Amino acid sequence: MLSKNQIKFIQSLQQKKHRNETGCFVAEGNKLVADLAPVFDCEWLIATDEWLAQHPFLTAKQTITANKEELRKAGGLTTPQDAIAVFRKPKYEFSATDLKGRLTLAVDRIQDPGNLGTIIRLADWFGIENILCSPDTVDLYNPKTVQATMGALARVKVHYLPLDQLLESHPEIPVYGTFLDGDDMYQTELTAEGIIIMGNEGNGISPEIEPLVTKRLYIPNFPEGRETSESLNVAIATAIVCAEFRRRIRQ
Amino acid sequence: MLSKNQIKFIQSLQQKKHRNETGCFVAEGNKLVADLAPVFDCEWLIATDEWLAQHPFLTAKQTITANKEELRKAGGLTTPQDAIAVFRKPKYEFSATDLKGRLTLAVDRIQDPGNLGTIIRLADWFGIENILCSPDTVDLYNPKTVQATMGALARVKVHYLPLDQLLESHPEIPVYGTFLDGDDMYQTELTAEGIIIMGNEGNGISPEIEPLVTKRLYIPNFPEGRETSESLNVAIATAIVCAEFRRRIRQ
Repeated sequence: MLSKNQIKFIQSLQQKKHRNETGCFVAEGNKLVADLAPVFDCEWLIATDEWLAQHPFLTAKQTITANKEELRKAGGLTTPQDAIAVFRKPKYEFSATDLKGRLTLAVDRIQDPGNLGTIIRLADWFGIENILCSPDTVDLYNPKTVQATMGALARVKVHYLPLDQLLESHPEIPVYGTFLDGDDMYQTELTAEGIIIMGNEGNGISPEIEPLVTKRLYIPNFPEGRETSESLNVAIATAIVCAEFRRRIRQ
Repeated sequence: MLSKNQIKFIQSLQQKKHRNETGCFVAEGNKLVADLAPVFDCEWLIATDEWLAQHPFLTAKQTITANKEELRKAGGLTTPQDAIAVFRKPKYEFSATDLKGRLTLAVDRIQDPGNLGTIIRLADWFGIENILCSPDTVDLYNPKTVQATMGALARVKVHYLPLDQLLESHPEIPVYGTFLDGDDMYQTELTAEGIIIMGNEGNGISPEIEPLVTKRLYIPNFPEGRETSESLNVAIATAIVCAEFRRRIRQ
């Protein structure tokens, strides 16, 4: 059974302030909990009897049996789930050597949690191990972000750090960004090592970061020159760019 | 000034039932309203004095000046906007000749309004003029869908129709779909004419439609064979596939 105080604690993790204070985050959903529980330190694993019986190998500091009504109260989703977990946020180290010889994604002030989660999911698909976030990017542990990763959170390491400082101290690493006045991506050399920067939903890459981009790319629309949407959603643009980097390397 | 009844009417358009009854839909947001108003029949254009002064050429059956508080009450967004409009839903004809010589997107039971809106936006970018939706796909005029199109709704025609019947009666048109056991998309011939079918978020392409897919594609992950996310978000997969179709045709 879930106590009132436990429900209150879980609900409080919807807010960044409480996640920061406690070092915890919450994941909700049958598949998501099953995907994350083997990877992260699990404080509380809260689920129905049936669900726990179906997942006998998951471990947690405390396993709590709850009914659907308690799970609904504790959770933030409209469709109540069979499992919710409170995890400890992992601590990842990131050093500049992690940039060497591989592709890294960086996001600059992305505000929509669904966009960040979707980007983490696609980074996983394309074998991108690290995502760097400017400090003012939406919180990775926002429940909507966690949800949108669909479990990819367990495989991609996300780091918050001042992007400009990092880029300034590593001028040897190619830095890619997409711009409406960039060069046709399909006509540009794409390297196996580099950082791809994706900017804010409404405003793109910030003025401090833009001068540090060494390769300005453009995703051509079709037919070229046609009047069309002014831009693509940021997660969509990230996907198209990452897919092309990976296609080239495979050839 | 917006009357209570007007506010109530606008709010009612958040629901599909009322949109169907009235044949109207609502769009909210400074840029969105400015993009859609020249294209669709506008019943009510509701905006602040300042906004109306900035957009002197927009016409509507009725133009209503409202203050921020009234706009907030009528609207569905957390951040109140300067403009809201009630439009009449357009009626588009679709015939099989519209499939000839071009690429068409079809979505099979997509449920998330944001995903549908994002797909409409990227279809616009890639010059896809028609999107076919299975009748049980989320409503195009859901305010979240309208929002996510970012105005692309004004340029892409969306049709709801029984996909299986259409495909069965046009076996000459190549039908593409993505599957985890499909052929590497980058190793497959992609034609300038065809229908790309994208399936439901959780369940993919439905069992009735699957046998009608003539070219089963796979978006390879990287490095191939690595354990990764089981799938990509449907809008992300649509984008990667459309980008590749357009890259080929351009070469």
